Amino acid sequence: MALEFNVLNTTEAGGRRGRIHLPHRTVETPVFMPVGTLGTVKAVAQDVLENLGAEIILGNTYHLYLRPGHEAIRRMGGLHRFISWPRAMLTDSGGFQVFSLSALRKVTDEGVRFRSHLDGSSHFFTPEHSMDVQIALGADICMAFDECTEYPADRTRAEESLRLTLAWARRSLDHFRAHSHEVPWHEELGGKTQSLFGIVQGGMYRDLRRESVERLVEMDFDGYAIGGLSVGEPRDLTLEMIAEVLPLLPADKPRYVMGVGYPDEIEKYARMGVDMMDCVLPTRAARHGLLFTSEGRLNIKGKKYAEDQGPPDPACSCMVCQRYSRAYLRHLMHSGEALSATLNSIHNLAYYLGIMEHVRKSLHSDGGDS
Amino acid sequence: MALEFNVLNTTEAGGRRGRIHLPHRTVETPVFMPVGTLGTVKAVAQDVLENLGAEIILGNTYHLYLRPGHEAIRRMGGLHRFISWPRAMLTDSGGFQVFSLSALRKVTDEGVRFRSHLDGSSHFFTPEHSMDVQIALGADICMAFDECTEYPADRTRAEESLRLTLAWARRSLDHFRAHSHEVPWHEELGGKTQSLFGIVQGGMYRDLRRESVERLVEMDFDGYAIGGLSVGEPRDLTLEMIAEVLPLLPADKPRYVMGVGYPDEIEKYARMGVDMMDCVLPTRAARHGLLFTSEGRLNIKGKKYAEDQGPPDPACSCMVCQRYSRAYLRHLMHSGEALSATLNSIHNLAYYLGIMEHVRKSLHSDGGDS
Repeated sequence: MALEFNVLNTTEAGGRRGRIHLPHRTVETPVFMPVGTLGTVKAVAQDVLENLGAEIILGNTYHLYLRPGHEAIRRMGGLHRFISWPRAMLTDSGGFQVFSLSALRKVTDEGVRFRSHLDGSSHFFTPEHSMDVQIALGADICMAFDECTEYPADRTRAEESLRLTLAWARRSLDHFRAHSHEVPWHEELGGKTQSLFGIVQGGMYRDLRRESVERLVEMDFDGYAIGGLSVGEPRDLTLEMIAEVLPLLPADKPRYVMGVGYPDEIEKYARMGVDMMDCVLPTRAARHGLLFTSEGRLNIKGKKYAEDQGPPDPACSCMVCQRYSRAYLRHLMHSGEALSATLNSIHNLAYYLGIMEHVRKSLHSDGGDS
Repeated sequence: MALEFNVLNTTEAGGRRGRIHLPHRTVETPVFMPVGTLGTVKAVAQDVLENLGAEIILGNTYHLYLRPGHEAIRRMGGLHRFISWPRAMLTDSGGFQVFSLSALRKVTDEGVRFRSHLDGSSHFFTPEHSMDVQIALGADICMAFDECTEYPADRTRAEESLRLTLAWARRSLDHFRAHSHEVPWHEELGGKTQSLFGIVQGGMYRDLRRESVERLVEMDFDGYAIGGLSVGEPRDLTLEMIAEVLPLLPADKPRYVMGVGYPDEIEKYARMGVDMMDCVLPTRAARHGLLFTSEGRLNIKGKKYAEDQGPPDPACSCMVCQRYSRAYLRHLMHSGEALSATLNSIHNLAYYLGIMEHVRKSLHSDGGDS
């Protein structure tokens, strides 16, 4: 049994208050998923993530495949056990990192040959291999192996890329279904299985996006992601693509927009009917001293905070805002102290998770339960 | 009122179970004090330190003087408030770092001129200035400004260095007493004041060490530290110096050995009658992947731990050993993840604090309460 998705309420604007039942956790949606690239949300310990209310985190297939290796993780019982994270997880397909991080990649219909960004070693990823790796990792949700269409891409390029993504989606799904019982926790969790999401591509071409949805929905995935966004396009184009695709997706399946976004964006997309989002922004920005607050963005490196004894965000109840001052966070950042990344990341994650909690409440009350 | 020290029990070997009443905390001794160089115990958040049972931590005067500056900290209410640490703190005099980190230092009877290791700017530290800085920082315990005699040092050099340290001790004490009401929390804590410890020097010469003790005790400090150890000398020489000095120190004052040591050393010294110790070793070693365990030292980088699902230390009840495996800690270290330093440091601190807790219990039961 894969996921079960209940929509508790739908607003006029299309926003949905939902609940995804996954093998390791029932996740309240819309949900923001912190990114734990290498099996750790950078600088934040698992118990802190739990206290922040994170219900599902991401792992990156490409990174974990290279280090420590998916077979090692399989032998240790899967990613949940390896990193000691009992709640839900999602792994991407590895495709995005293969295209963005690796060198000398060569794409054929069969798959992608690439060189590791770590040691230059040669690797070959196919849809089948991506599924094998993701099954070994054992996240609750896996992603079909796709080609993330770059921006800008002309129409011919976008069509060709979509053709590849659709063929790979089919192969991903077939291989995934045939091997779903191989997930490390299959018996331990009474025969439960992972879920597989298809990824809508098509560049910035509305009709290609529509074609992508149509073909993927025919294949009947457990959920659908909108990929190929946040790749350099203007924000109104991101919004346009999301608005185009959302109404076409089946209402009874979770909808996931990958790799977005700023606080105002995740709120907007959630209110439009996006159920899941992930982004490195809250943690990456944190490491550079950028805090998201109810008063806007705050660059903690600023000299004006040198003796500012106020909390990072006066309206925030996170453990960082309750205990530490802007002056102290600035000092940690200026001194290059490790605690800087930790505290900044905790606050930003609290802020993102808080936005989604707020949105969930308003989606719930707006029109009553269904 | 400075500190109040109660010896609850003394063993035949000289070990003491005690209690130091300080303005911000009553500290159970013997105690190990984690080092929080720049106002943060590297990679470990304050709430975690509290949960680990740390009752007193160190701050480094030299580092905090340069960044963010003692006057800024004074204006913000002192170091406790600045870093949000409500328990006890101790600051060193800055002398050790001036001698070990700064460039182009020039020592005169008046003080030390040196260049910052950060930007090369020129600074002048005198005993009076060190006291002013430490009073601005507002730790519960301050240290007299001393010259840490290097190793090896010939007799003439050790004598000359001791002469300087004793003159500076006198000046430190006079200035400290005259300005003790200037500590930022003086009124807030009902007129309580900081305490000042003298530092025994004398190189590796027993008679110079004895002379140092005699002269310092005449001055009547609130406690006494043994300095100039762990500077490269063989371990048996460290032990010899501690054994020489301890019996000469007043029984009713806390005794602090600075900058030691390995787990077996801190246990041994505590059983000989040392009440306080500090060392960067547990946290620094942690950042290099060296874990201290009940089974000995463990280099977590080792390939043999790649799929070791056991806890770092099977006998340890710390949050790291209860949750994470050796394989995961190795993976974090290999991947250069920030969480590596955090988890390794938490375990090592738990191990050090656990040793002292164990020693306190055995010192208490050995001969009954006094």
